[in-house]
Amino acid sequence: MSFIVRKGKIPDMPQVLNLIKELAAFEKEPDAVIVTEKDLLRDGFKKNPLFKTYVAEQDGEIVGMALIYPRYSTWKGMTIHLEDLIVKKDKRGLGIGKALYSRVMQYAYKKKVKRVEWVVLDWNITAVDFYKSTGATILTDWHLAQMDEKALQAYINK
Amino acid sequence: MSFIVRKGKIPDMPQVLNLIKELAAFEKEPDAVIVTEKDLLRDGFKKNPLFKTYVAEQDGEIVGMALIYPRYSTWKGMTIHLEDLIVKKDKRGLGIGKALYSRVMQYAYKKKVKRVEWVVLDWNITAVDFYKSTGATILTDWHLAQMDEKALQAYINK
Repeated sequence: MSFIVRKGKIPDMPQVLNLIKELAAFEKEPDAVIVTEKDLLRDGFKKNPLFKTYVAEQDGEIVGMALIYPRYSTWKGMTIHLEDLIVKKDKRGLGIGKALYSRVMQYAYKKKVKRVEWVVLDWNITAVDFYKSTGATILTDWHLAQMDEKALQAYINK
Repeated sequence: MSFIVRKGKIPDMPQVLNLIKELAAFEKEPDAVIVTEKDLLRDGFKKNPLFKTYVAEQDGEIVGMALIYPRYSTWKGMTIHLEDLIVKKDKRGLGIGKALYSRVMQYAYKKKVKRVEWVVLDWNITAVDFYKSTGATILTDWHLAQMDEKALQAYINK
């Protein structure tokens, strides 16, 4: 069955959140998702939205989504970050992921950004191989650093 | 000699760009910086700026800078990304880096974001140790993926 890829709209957010939660459960971190539908509606659709989504729709159902936002490289200038690309578990292998990925790349190309960037888990060989096949580079000498809310509070109050 | 940390302003950008270029030269990639003063002025000071800077000033000279912008976690919500934190080479060891770092954390705390995130080169043990000492977590199982302008063009035209 065919699907279409289009910009994500307000009524899509409940299903987008379901996809986010489905992925978190698959990664065995179901409780890690604290984002709510209200957050997505506020942050993605306010005057200067914090992100933009593309969704894949099949028979009125949202079966995949990509979430992006701008970043800024001090060497290159504006870039696009691909935060998440999710395809519903029982809809994989139909080209939906690749269609969403291509749509993001087309948007980035149109916007004339200097780079599209994202992160990938080192054990996800299938994803790494796909990214490489599209011309992407995988940088293995950088580590992510994060200060979460709790650590931030402790640091500030020290 | 003492220094102050404050928000970066338009007249600071030439010196901020010098710091960016100094770091690139130090990392043996002097030609990698294609960002211009005009880019920084347009992108950092337009109506919805792409980034925000803090600078360290000593005797009227900009001796350090931190550049940040918002990101969005599909699990947590709004976060702050620390893209760059640079201290002029001959001004290191005076606490300027830590003062800029703390200022960014204070801003993130005030904004009630869910996380501050950045990247660090795996061989930069001094930096990694400092970040850990402040409560940050280093994630070693993620790799950065990047599609640069040239690869993007090739992918789109394929």
